Amino acid sequence: MAKKTTFNIDKDENFSEWYTDIVQKAELGDLRYNVKGFLVFQPWSVLSMEKMYHYLERELRRKGHKPYWFPTLIPKENFNLEGEHVKGFTPEVFWVTEGGKKKFKEKLALRPTSETAFYQMFSLWIRSYKDLPFKTYQRANIFRYETKATRPFLRSREFHWIETHCAHESEENAMEQVYQDMDTSKKILGDIFCLPFIVFERPEWDKFPGAKRTFAADVLNPDGKLVQQPSTHLLNQDFAKAFNVKFVDKNEKEKLVWLTCYGPAISRIFASIIAVHGDNKGLKFPWKIAPVQVIIVPINNDKKIIKKAEELRETLWDNKISVEVDKTEKTFGEKLYFWEMKGTPLRIELGNKEIQEKNLTIFRRDTEKKEKIKEKELLTYINKTSVDIDKNIKKQAENLFKGKITDTKTKKELKEIIDSGKIARCGFCSMNKDGTKCAELIEKETGAQVRGTRLDKEKNNFQKCVICGKKANHVTYVARQY
Amino acid sequence: MAKKTTFNIDKDENFSEWYTDIVQKAELGDLRYNVKGFLVFQPWSVLSMEKMYHYLERELRRKGHKPYWFPTLIPKENFNLEGEHVKGFTPEVFWVTEGGKKKFKEKLALRPTSETAFYQMFSLWIRSYKDLPFKTYQRANIFRYETKATRPFLRSREFHWIETHCAHESEENAMEQVYQDMDTSKKILGDIFCLPFIVFERPEWDKFPGAKRTFAADVLNPDGKLVQQPSTHLLNQDFAKAFNVKFVDKNEKEKLVWLTCYGPAISRIFASIIAVHGDNKGLKFPWKIAPVQVIIVPINNDKKIIKKAEELRETLWDNKISVEVDKTEKTFGEKLYFWEMKGTPLRIELGNKEIQEKNLTIFRRDTEKKEKIKEKELLTYINKTSVDIDKNIKKQAENLFKGKITDTKTKKELKEIIDSGKIARCGFCSMNKDGTKCAELIEKETGAQVRGTRLDKEKNNFQKCVICGKKANHVTYVARQY
Repeated sequence: MAKKTTFNIDKDENFSEWYTDIVQKAELGDLRYNVKGFLVFQPWSVLSMEKMYHYLERELRRKGHKPYWFPTLIPKENFNLEGEHVKGFTPEVFWVTEGGKKKFKEKLALRPTSETAFYQMFSLWIRSYKDLPFKTYQRANIFRYETKATRPFLRSREFHWIETHCAHESEENAMEQVYQDMDTSKKILGDIFCLPFIVFERPEWDKFPGAKRTFAADVLNPDGKLVQQPSTHLLNQDFAKAFNVKFVDKNEKEKLVWLTCYGPAISRIFASIIAVHGDNKGLKFPWKIAPVQVIIVPINNDKKIIKKAEELRETLWDNKISVEVDKTEKTFGEKLYFWEMKGTPLRIELGNKEIQEKNLTIFRRDTEKKEKIKEKELLTYINKTSVDIDKNIKKQAENLFKGKITDTKTKKELKEIIDSGKIARCGFCSMNKDGTKCAELIEKETGAQVRGTRLDKEKNNFQKCVICGKKANHVTYVARQY
Repeated sequence: MAKKTTFNIDKDENFSEWYTDIVQKAELGDLRYNVKGFLVFQPWSVLSMEKMYHYLERELRRKGHKPYWFPTLIPKENFNLEGEHVKGFTPEVFWVTEGGKKKFKEKLALRPTSETAFYQMFSLWIRSYKDLPFKTYQRANIFRYETKATRPFLRSREFHWIETHCAHESEENAMEQVYQDMDTSKKILGDIFCLPFIVFERPEWDKFPGAKRTFAADVLNPDGKLVQQPSTHLLNQDFAKAFNVKFVDKNEKEKLVWLTCYGPAISRIFASIIAVHGDNKGLKFPWKIAPVQVIIVPINNDKKIIKKAEELRETLWDNKISVEVDKTEKTFGEKLYFWEMKGTPLRIELGNKEIQEKNLTIFRRDTEKKEKIKEKELLTYINKTSVDIDKNIKKQAENLFKGKITDTKTKKELKEIIDSGKIARCGFCSMNKDGTKCAELIEKETGAQVRGTRLDKEKNNFQKCVICGKKANHVTYVARQY
């Protein structure tokens, strides 16, 4: 199978083709597995996602969450206990009905999310206010029999995530947890994965099944659609009631706990990393989550050059940098294109001249510029530059949102904004059930959704709801979503 | 629920009770989940198993394996392609038959192992000898509808493992991989998890379904039974044929690859870590995989003492040591027993006297001895002692095997040895199907199995097969197993 040596697709013009192609060319995932909607995750994505897990789990542990591994299978009866939840998830559940030759009396679900597994155990583990807050998390694979079109990483029938589940003494404490979850999103998605996002409180009709309040981070895709990334939920007390999760408070009174959960989907976030940071030449990884951070490309495979390359590799390896030497049979030119396409942040080009002069030629994927540095300054250079790369990648990503949000006061203009691949900002009547009709009308006419209200409160300069013309109690954002 | 403050069960006298109790008291796993044979893995085991994964994956990557995440679901048709494999695994498969309200035409298996998923993709990825060796691995959860009694960590219906799958040019190259896998077991299970084991080549009748040759590391449980830990297999070429995994060799001839696989089950190895290293007072963790390596126990919760404890914690934390301060409301004495039961390798006891004298009192779980050191020497002490702890724990574990292996030439003695909870070493006629009858007779009369021949060859001083009296072509070991 002959491979094109260069990757060059206009991402802005043809995002969908660009995305499909880069997933295949960079060997991120293989769709040819023979179960529909399931992806084989290949090393170039797994290496990055393992780093993503690392940073996210470290932050959760820093914040006092303890790790669990729960069973993948959840009995049907557990789902039935919470009405909204069963309604919300049952259409999407894969069911295990047989083991060996035995048919089970009751079906077992492949977890589509694990509230009903965790809270049943919470009722056994939590006794007193001294046990609270009870903060957990698990790294897990999740199954949803999606009826929407699947797309690698963004929406698969099996995906990889972290879910945190916490129990609290009061609604107030629970809301503190929700804010802390959003802080985790900011620190990890924002600062380390370099993804800009807006956090919305979702309207009544778009909450998680079983939640009292739902907050979610929306990332903007280059094609103008929003992607819902981590969401965090203050659950209503029906879950605590259903699973009998109670505690004895300081005054020896028995009370129901308040539950919160948070679900950063690593493989889905990876979709945004591909989509937001990539360019016409291919992928572009932020430093900390690059599968290979430094690629050393020898001008040719001469012994002396390879030896020097291996020396450099070891120095960098010892300093905990992910590094490889490209010793394949490709031409030098092919190698340069290849690693640009793969999105490796730094490339060291090594020939006899560099060895003699004790210099190194280094190419930065983010600026596409070459620099010459003294070999002995390599580590200092990398320490400094890696920070700069992330700043720059974040800034490039932030440009995406710029000019994409347009204010409007009319239904007609709203439709035009959405059709041009932008986000409309407008006045809206109500985020509880009174607003449902207006939201449905927007969806019907534009295919776009009311995302809710920003968590970072903004001034409401709108007088009227863009649809019904009644008082605008909220500023909202309207956009199409994946 | 009142908790006993001390854990004290005679492990040698009553291993089974000891094991069940420590799993519960140390909060390693909870069996009260409402699907039979499934365990909730709690933080104290997950923290350790995450470290186990870390060391194992690092070693595999060092050896050139690339990480994948394959789908959990495998179509039934994939299993049907390899006859022995389908026969071996079908009785143990959980089947997914429905998604949402839809019944599937063809059942999907929850992977009981992933050969039939990997090799189908190998056929798409491997083209030429230049692609070989093709070395992969995945970290995954595995499902087996076990008919044998389950036991936490040792045998559950869902467990956590690494599986490696590799393709090679020749049988010789494939066998090199098998030896490399055993080297990984030695470096990780042996040196880091401090578990002694013997590697056997399994007899014909006890091979992995689809293997030409099977090698496995047997760890000795304190009750005299063997536990099969990582096994590695040279597969017969039926798999390559069934999935059409071919390559073009240097002479442009198309050939079938040779496949190998290796399956260290992290959660099952954890069972051996509990069982082998623990003592009457509770768990005992090797340094590198201890959930908490150093516990700081303040004499009381006075501000000054807590402040100092937190200072020490931060110093250790910055040096990548897993450390905690026990600020609970337990008494000082209760805390000491608690952390001994939990198996934390080092305990720092901190009071006003220590702060004044700038000394620290340190308790070692492995030797059960206290030492007084200068505070400023803490890091040097830990660096030195952590190595010593692992050496000592390994040595204590090696004592288990000592005196447990007894030579015999008679059937009667063989039975006595097995009944006394020991391992019998004896002459044996044949490791291929000719020996099946003798092996079955042993199993019937003693409940024990012929484990095969040692990988590290030993001299055969036996003349005759212990059962049939024919020529002893092999030395073998006979023991009961889990």
